[in-house]
Amino acid sequence: MAVPEPTLTPVEWRDNALHLLDQRQLPAKTQWLRYHDHQAVSQAIENMVVRGAPAIGVTAAYAAVLAGRQGWQQHQHQWPDYFQRAIATLASARPTAVNLRWALQQMQAVADNLQPATEPTTALLTAAQAMHADDIAANQQIGRLGAALLPDHCAVLTHCNAGALATGGFGTALGVIRQAMADNKLHHVYVNETRPWLQGARLTAWELMQENIPMTLQADVAAGALMASGELDWIIVGADRIAANGDTANKIGTYSLAVLARHHGLKFMVAAPISTIDWQLDSGTGIPIEQRPASEVTHMHQQPIAPPGVNVSNPAFDVTPASLIDAIVTEAGIVEQPSTASMQLLKEKL
Amino acid sequence: MAVPEPTLTPVEWRDNALHLLDQRQLPAKTQWLRYHDHQAVSQAIENMVVRGAPAIGVTAAYAAVLAGRQGWQQHQHQWPDYFQRAIATLASARPTAVNLRWALQQMQAVADNLQPATEPTTALLTAAQAMHADDIAANQQIGRLGAALLPDHCAVLTHCNAGALATGGFGTALGVIRQAMADNKLHHVYVNETRPWLQGARLTAWELMQENIPMTLQADVAAGALMASGELDWIIVGADRIAANGDTANKIGTYSLAVLARHHGLKFMVAAPISTIDWQLDSGTGIPIEQRPASEVTHMHQQPIAPPGVNVSNPAFDVTPASLIDAIVTEAGIVEQPSTASMQLLKEKL
Repeated sequence: MAVPEPTLTPVEWRDNALHLLDQRQLPAKTQWLRYHDHQAVSQAIENMVVRGAPAIGVTAAYAAVLAGRQGWQQHQHQWPDYFQRAIATLASARPTAVNLRWALQQMQAVADNLQPATEPTTALLTAAQAMHADDIAANQQIGRLGAALLPDHCAVLTHCNAGALATGGFGTALGVIRQAMADNKLHHVYVNETRPWLQGARLTAWELMQENIPMTLQADVAAGALMASGELDWIIVGADRIAANGDTANKIGTYSLAVLARHHGLKFMVAAPISTIDWQLDSGTGIPIEQRPASEVTHMHQQPIAPPGVNVSNPAFDVTPASLIDAIVTEAGIVEQPSTASMQLLKEKL
Repeated sequence: MAVPEPTLTPVEWRDNALHLLDQRQLPAKTQWLRYHDHQAVSQAIENMVVRGAPAIGVTAAYAAVLAGRQGWQQHQHQWPDYFQRAIATLASARPTAVNLRWALQQMQAVADNLQPATEPTTALLTAAQAMHADDIAANQQIGRLGAALLPDHCAVLTHCNAGALATGGFGTALGVIRQAMADNKLHHVYVNETRPWLQGARLTAWELMQENIPMTLQADVAAGALMASGELDWIIVGADRIAANGDTANKIGTYSLAVLARHHGLKFMVAAPISTIDWQLDSGTGIPIEQRPASEVTHMHQQPIAPPGVNVSNPAFDVTPASLIDAIVTEAGIVEQPSTASMQLLKEKL
């Protein structure tokens, strides 16, 4: 069976700079932004120029390259101090996705192995590019493993965007969907628009339409009735952080879908690279949940869609307990019915 | 305990014409539209100038007054034929809410008792105004009965707008909430924004803020995590049509909330007048579900929020099975654990 090629990456290193596809503008506008300093990249992560846990990880790795270069230019042999402070700033850009901290730890380890007297850019760039390539390869392997779980002629529902735009390229949940499409297993993809940021409507619908994958966009609230209709087989989502027992933080609304899937006897898949697993956390209760600005709920295109001054709660993520997940699909293997014990078996393979 | 007064009505008869508060413009703009002919009212119902099953019923009753007057002006003694055709047109304006047809049947019965030689406007108007007053009185009684079910210091979640704006005035689900607030039972109201039309953000938040009822607006997808937090006691919604076994059609997303409520051990209340019950339908499977235009999902303020040409499903309602409902609260009494048998007991009281 053919492995689809990655057709899109939201993160590129060229001309000695980091380039990010501005996801706030999609699908209306395809605009790349160019970054020469890590502070601006940190802002870009916070403001969601780039989003999606694996894409944030790859972006942070390249930001570390910029930090190393800035440190050398400004402080020469004292660059390691500057670098370490930059890593700390970058790590705080968004709290929930663990890939951000994972990628920065890798880059810090590379820096720690360099001599202070050495200009660090080349070594850091080599490491970041390897991490980027590894992420795409991991996605492709996740796609193969995940697609193999699906029945023939199946219909799936996905939430948010766990596609090429959320990763180094190819996608996790959408990687599974791309592979299933290439394998002629996929009948139809339903896409939740994913309020408030509309990653589903703006990004996932756009990605699938680019590849002529048959799809239907719907308001998030339509998921229950769709499940009751008997039309769906699997729900497939990505992840922002997976605890050691398999509890999974992902885009707000994922938990509701998992409860609904269980009620309807449908299968629920989390597709994510190993770098999404936080082995330090025993369970999902320890995962910090980011509250995003109220304006994401109250405004659209800078125009109000709610009364001025309304009180808003806007959590960006929720936690789905492992007991509601049928399979966590990583590049290192599948964990079915995840638990502390079955996740430990995966860890031992790494 | 005090009974709150109705503070707002979206439907008014004055200066020999029907006036509708244009709910498409809220909360940005409070604009009343004036109607002299039933054809324009039919369009207004279809285009959601007015929405909410009971409000549509009251509006249709006044539209029947206009139809009678138009029939007399244009055809004198042949007005009954014109009237009958007008009723048929009005009945098809929206398919799901049964109150529309219920109100029109009442008005047809009034017309059937008039002599063709009599100018029918006065008699029809008297009937429509009585129906309007009855709707408000029913809401107040629903409020009293529903609030009595709630525990002290409770927090509730509501979906869509089943408020004064959805009824002749006062509200069904929001009637319960208003009464509970007056009874000092209510700690907090959570409001789902209710995509795609945002009745929750635009209408319910606005109604509650006008009365200083403590509330928080959230994206619909946040309901699962909120329920898991342990913060909620009841979910309270309105209804567009209730079958004879208690199955309830209401705004899309209601069914998901009922499944989630059951999963979390929370109580689920449907608040609706008797006119919402379709005794002809054995179960919810027979309720027609309206598909609304794709543009409600793909556009906001006339601007695109999804790729051009995207395939969309936009069902306006879903059906919650009676087995997931703890109480159906009507002005004639409460049906707990609704079923064909317990609903029949309510019917016998009418």
